Amino acid sequence: MSLRIAVIGAGPSGLAQLRAFASAAAAGAEVPEIVAFEKQSDWGGLWNYTWRTGLDGHGEPVHGSMYRYLWSNGPKECLEFADYGFEEHFGRAIPSYPPRAVLFDYIKGRVEKSGVRSFVRFETPVKWVSWSDETQLFTVTVKDLKSDTVSSETFDYVVVASGHFSTPNVPYFPGLEMFPGRVLHSHDFRDACEFTGKNVLVVGASYSAEDIGIQCHKYGAKSVTFSYRTRPMGFDWPETLSEVPLLTHVTGKIAHFKDGSSREVDAIVLCTGYLHHFPFLDDSLRLKTNNRLWPLGLYKGVFWTKNPKLLYIGMQDQFYTFNMFDAQAWYARDVILGKIALPDPAAMEAETLEWRAREEAVTNPEEAIDFQTEYVRDLLAATDYPHLDVDHVAALFKEWEHHKVEGILTYRDRSYPSTLTGTVAPVHHTPWMQAMDDSLEAFLNVPAKAAE
Amino acid sequence: MSLRIAVIGAGPSGLAQLRAFASAAAAGAEVPEIVAFEKQSDWGGLWNYTWRTGLDGHGEPVHGSMYRYLWSNGPKECLEFADYGFEEHFGRAIPSYPPRAVLFDYIKGRVEKSGVRSFVRFETPVKWVSWSDETQLFTVTVKDLKSDTVSSETFDYVVVASGHFSTPNVPYFPGLEMFPGRVLHSHDFRDACEFTGKNVLVVGASYSAEDIGIQCHKYGAKSVTFSYRTRPMGFDWPETLSEVPLLTHVTGKIAHFKDGSSREVDAIVLCTGYLHHFPFLDDSLRLKTNNRLWPLGLYKGVFWTKNPKLLYIGMQDQFYTFNMFDAQAWYARDVILGKIALPDPAAMEAETLEWRAREEAVTNPEEAIDFQTEYVRDLLAATDYPHLDVDHVAALFKEWEHHKVEGILTYRDRSYPSTLTGTVAPVHHTPWMQAMDDSLEAFLNVPAKAAE
Repeated sequence: MSLRIAVIGAGPSGLAQLRAFASAAAAGAEVPEIVAFEKQSDWGGLWNYTWRTGLDGHGEPVHGSMYRYLWSNGPKECLEFADYGFEEHFGRAIPSYPPRAVLFDYIKGRVEKSGVRSFVRFETPVKWVSWSDETQLFTVTVKDLKSDTVSSETFDYVVVASGHFSTPNVPYFPGLEMFPGRVLHSHDFRDACEFTGKNVLVVGASYSAEDIGIQCHKYGAKSVTFSYRTRPMGFDWPETLSEVPLLTHVTGKIAHFKDGSSREVDAIVLCTGYLHHFPFLDDSLRLKTNNRLWPLGLYKGVFWTKNPKLLYIGMQDQFYTFNMFDAQAWYARDVILGKIALPDPAAMEAETLEWRAREEAVTNPEEAIDFQTEYVRDLLAATDYPHLDVDHVAALFKEWEHHKVEGILTYRDRSYPSTLTGTVAPVHHTPWMQAMDDSLEAFLNVPAKAAE
Repeated sequence: MSLRIAVIGAGPSGLAQLRAFASAAAAGAEVPEIVAFEKQSDWGGLWNYTWRTGLDGHGEPVHGSMYRYLWSNGPKECLEFADYGFEEHFGRAIPSYPPRAVLFDYIKGRVEKSGVRSFVRFETPVKWVSWSDETQLFTVTVKDLKSDTVSSETFDYVVVASGHFSTPNVPYFPGLEMFPGRVLHSHDFRDACEFTGKNVLVVGASYSAEDIGIQCHKYGAKSVTFSYRTRPMGFDWPETLSEVPLLTHVTGKIAHFKDGSSREVDAIVLCTGYLHHFPFLDDSLRLKTNNRLWPLGLYKGVFWTKNPKLLYIGMQDQFYTFNMFDAQAWYARDVILGKIALPDPAAMEAETLEWRAREEAVTNPEEAIDFQTEYVRDLLAATDYPHLDVDHVAALFKEWEHHKVEGILTYRDRSYPSTLTGTVAPVHHTPWMQAMDDSLEAFLNVPAKAAE
């Protein structure tokens, strides 16, 4: 009987897994039966924008955390698939910082070409996964949202690729319950125009805070106040943006901070991160971790050491994204196909702890980039994934960090060379701060497909 | 071995079930072991206000649909517990339309007095319920949010009391994804002050639309446009409130309606109702219904006819609320205690279909009130629940309907007599349109317990 593999999620991580098997099949390998279960009605995960917040049309938690006017906050050259470049997809070189719709188009291009869409069951969230020692099989219980029916099937392997930027971490600050305005987590942020003319408080000091704050500024917020727990981001902000210590409490519209200062604000955006959340997994199978470069319990960052037939893709904190998911998915594939043998549990655990020790020695962003570069290099060495010049990628990441420091509103106007083709990206036709239309058509300067 | 009963939810319906058993125990009966599983950190269900929207601090869907400044939209005399009156709780008569905090206090008063808090496991959502034909037991799998652990226990009976006004029904209208402002479902509406000075579009023509629209008006919205599918509410609206046919699509900030008219709006509130949503139930156990007076599949509106050890409380569309839940819970209790025998499945099904035929003959609100009155009367006749004068309650409901038509902004200034004591409620110290503070302290004219 042939093996059956369940993939949970058809976003960048799940699609990497589908693509990895399609690639092996194209090379003549016999591959197992794969079923990808996707909650949304289309693939692409977070890149599949939705206007919905909270719960979706079926009462399921909304997966999407993307907002309108989101542009890549890192160079596209750092996330380029080694087997499907931007130039191949678009037929020409494009600027280094594309908006969401352009990256979504790119992600879809590869999997459409691979013909893997038939493996995905859309509008089918996974409700529960259990493992039987007796049968050595997983039972996966899913809900077909279209027919409103629940059913179960067994699988030999389960690949968890459901992402970890979908379930908001929402702390409480005293007084939020009486704040006479909107309080939201960045997960529910959709359109900066809602905050035009307003004084916005952004709680947080990581990527979401930085980007949502400057989006609000770009679309006309009166002021943006960032509140940090540990340290300020320290960018050279324009006049109406500023950083203050952590919010302590709110009285009416007045936000109070740890240094005793206070400000009147109209809206509060909690950019306080996300939870690794797997409501469909029993404790014995469930990864419990904060967002970090090396979660414990995963051999090679992928295999659940307590039961390596359960795999996780993309569960690390990320500099590397799409191509790291590929590196993981190709490795996962080769283990499932029997091309790579897993060591015994003790050896897996030991190697995992070695990586954790290295991760704990990381003291700054450059070292963090180097750490993840070594991890990706280690995975790539074992499979036939096309050559990816990780040293070049790492150098671009470091350049990007410097460019952000040089100008948080202008770094997206920079260009970088592709690590695949060497082509330097063209400069975009409009500086980012003036580029208000984030559509694919505006970015590529092509006619819109349909009238509004 | 003694019976074990799981109650899912500790809101008004679940608390009615706990109170019903406590009442029997107080009268000397031997009662089963009861465990109520509650997702939130306190009891009261919807009446336990939360500022949170979407997902809560543990990544669970937020239960609460209540908003600040919510006052009862029906006379409190229609929902009074027959075994615990408002005068008993507050030590005096209070006005007929209390704000949320006052009703929450009242609900809590009875169960605090009953000493049932120890039966409730808080912050413990139910993840899955399954039935075994072999053991004739339910396995209930729950997550303890505090310890982040999942565990299972078996029960003889399961009472589903998780409510049906928590999972929003959110339709799509073309253009919502490009609307440059906030789009929300009434489930996520929290504070009308967010909409002060704005032109608000409210989609819907039922209780949520009516009440959220007038809340926005009360707290300074520039205009409120109600959009109806079938027919307008037809109240005598103030000048800045108006009704238009159904929204067809949105272009930019312009909302277009079925009659060809259009309006520029700043925010869109979808008051489009709720789904009966039981993500923890298999198809064989799961009630599937729209919101109506007589869902099928439930004998006496309570017992899942396919397996009457599964019970549902409060799943009907509601004129009657708290005291109807009591009537159901007392009946449920007496069946579980063996005081009332259930007929055979065919007889249960036949009676259920008779009620459905009567429900389908209902043509107007007065008949709907009469229908539910007969249902409650039927339940009450079989148990020792204290005397409830349902004819009096029905008369009050009909009076209330007339009062709303006479003045949608002033009906909350009316007073009604208690059906328990006959005391006519005092007139409130402030007309509702001028009563901006919705706290218990302001309503009762008592000093606030704590400084802000």
